[in-house]
Amino acid sequence: MSIAEAGEFGLIGRIVSRLGSGEATLIGPGDDAAVIRASDGRVVASTDVLVEGRHFRRDWCGPEDVGHRAAAANLADIAAMGAVPTALLVALCMPTGLDIGWAEGLADGLSAEAGLVGATVVGGDTSSSPTLTIAVTALGDLRGADPVRRDGAKPGDVLALCGRIGYAAAGLTVLSRGFRTPKLLVEAYRRPVVPYAAGPQAARLGATSMIDVSDGLLQDLGHIATASSVGIDVRRDAFELPGQMRDAASALGVDPYLWLLAGGDDHPLAATFPPGVTLPPEWRVVGSVQDGSTVTVDGKAWTGGTGWDHFR
Amino acid sequence: MSIAEAGEFGLIGRIVSRLGSGEATLIGPGDDAAVIRASDGRVVASTDVLVEGRHFRRDWCGPEDVGHRAAAANLADIAAMGAVPTALLVALCMPTGLDIGWAEGLADGLSAEAGLVGATVVGGDTSSSPTLTIAVTALGDLRGADPVRRDGAKPGDVLALCGRIGYAAAGLTVLSRGFRTPKLLVEAYRRPVVPYAAGPQAARLGATSMIDVSDGLLQDLGHIATASSVGIDVRRDAFELPGQMRDAASALGVDPYLWLLAGGDDHPLAATFPPGVTLPPEWRVVGSVQDGSTVTVDGKAWTGGTGWDHFR
Repeated sequence: MSIAEAGEFGLIGRIVSRLGSGEATLIGPGDDAAVIRASDGRVVASTDVLVEGRHFRRDWCGPEDVGHRAAAANLADIAAMGAVPTALLVALCMPTGLDIGWAEGLADGLSAEAGLVGATVVGGDTSSSPTLTIAVTALGDLRGADPVRRDGAKPGDVLALCGRIGYAAAGLTVLSRGFRTPKLLVEAYRRPVVPYAAGPQAARLGATSMIDVSDGLLQDLGHIATASSVGIDVRRDAFELPGQMRDAASALGVDPYLWLLAGGDDHPLAATFPPGVTLPPEWRVVGSVQDGSTVTVDGKAWTGGTGWDHFR
Repeated sequence: MSIAEAGEFGLIGRIVSRLGSGEATLIGPGDDAAVIRASDGRVVASTDVLVEGRHFRRDWCGPEDVGHRAAAANLADIAAMGAVPTALLVALCMPTGLDIGWAEGLADGLSAEAGLVGATVVGGDTSSSPTLTIAVTALGDLRGADPVRRDGAKPGDVLALCGRIGYAAAGLTVLSRGFRTPKLLVEAYRRPVVPYAAGPQAARLGATSMIDVSDGLLQDLGHIATASSVGIDVRRDAFELPGQMRDAASALGVDPYLWLLAGGDDHPLAATFPPGVTLPPEWRVVGSVQDGSTVTVDGKAWTGGTGWDHFR
């Protein structure tokens, strides 16, 4: 059945029936607005949008995958403030001929990814559009903690990373060259594995700054460097190059460090910590903060490309 | 300058420079997420999306108008819960060739409309897209009040309306027939005048249910009827037909009650109150709640069309 045949309220009814209910949800879908708990009197909020052809392709990602990715991009932003996600709101614009099963799969993916952190889809809006577009807003709860911003990094701090990096970019290259394997990389592109709990953990460990790496490590560290008025140096030898990534890079004729340093979509968290911090093993030290204003790799400017501009 | 020439961060910088800062904003644009005050430990949240060609036309509305409309559609949803809006987040998808002045005008309109209620734009996302699309999420604060839902109307309650109705629909008909006047109606379509303060006011007056009329009065009252398991009767003679609306209807060969009863986009608030309530003059009694399950007009089924389905 197409979305046009189901009609707006038929579609909404089908989507809502697939959503769970969350601990923080006081009023869920079906009224003018949702009401969500914000336990410490503050709410963290972030919006990200995915556009077909720009952020995803339906022949590369199933609807559940797109749901996971759309949710992850937003939930990672909440985690990167040191907060725990509570809720998602979704604006969904779809061609009228789209099968309703696609929208249901998307709802399942959104709901499942949100469920990983105990959050739920609490509301949204739908419209027809020639361009399939998914705008998601995530809300979160700092639970009394101070938010970790981008502007607190200080010379001498260590730079650490939690979560996979380069996998999704490698998977995207694989898909764009017409391949469907290695599965590890392709699946990483389809469904990022985001270390959500590492966000509040970093806040407790005294992180001086933190960012969700969504557009490429060097570019996103550039935002910390600018906001904090510091330089950041990344050490290439701190990164482990997984065998499948190395092999894929070799087969495709790509420098794998382009994936690691400039690839997006994995959503690891990058944070700076005071010198002498003891980090749990999921955080890997990959560089340091210094005087300066730019991001360097092994002390030198990087010339291999920095990241993604959504208008170029 | 086109958006592609400005680049993503150039565009974001230009937009952010035009946004004010609000009393409820603890962290505004420029980090992974915004942090907004939620004074009573709850946050009200709603998302609405506007798609070019579906919800607006650039030859009918300037960018400031579209900004006002996009903000108003969301802020009205917050008011309809009885809450005071605090913040907006905006996902903006634009063709790369769009002039950056259009995006700036949109930001001005969003910011100005939010400013009417002391709210601000605290964050968002941008992407290129073939289809100009604006998804807005509004947040709000109940300030200790109980949210006014759709499911509390009881037989015997009075139905009241606050705000203009039919004006925007009349303006849309005028524009769609190729006219640009009467200005009163065309401007009502371009920039709704939403009675935001009437939302919390209705909550204080003991409203048993409330809704933002965005898709047509009869259709939106149908949501209250369904949620509350009641019938609702609307009295045609309770509506004042402004002279310019009457004249336009006559000139265009349209039944003006189609605008009043089935037209959207004005965003008045409709609420039900216990019998015997004393309402301030901005609330006009237009009907009553009774046993039943449908919405009637003067006791009879309405056959003139009920409202808007975004997929038909």
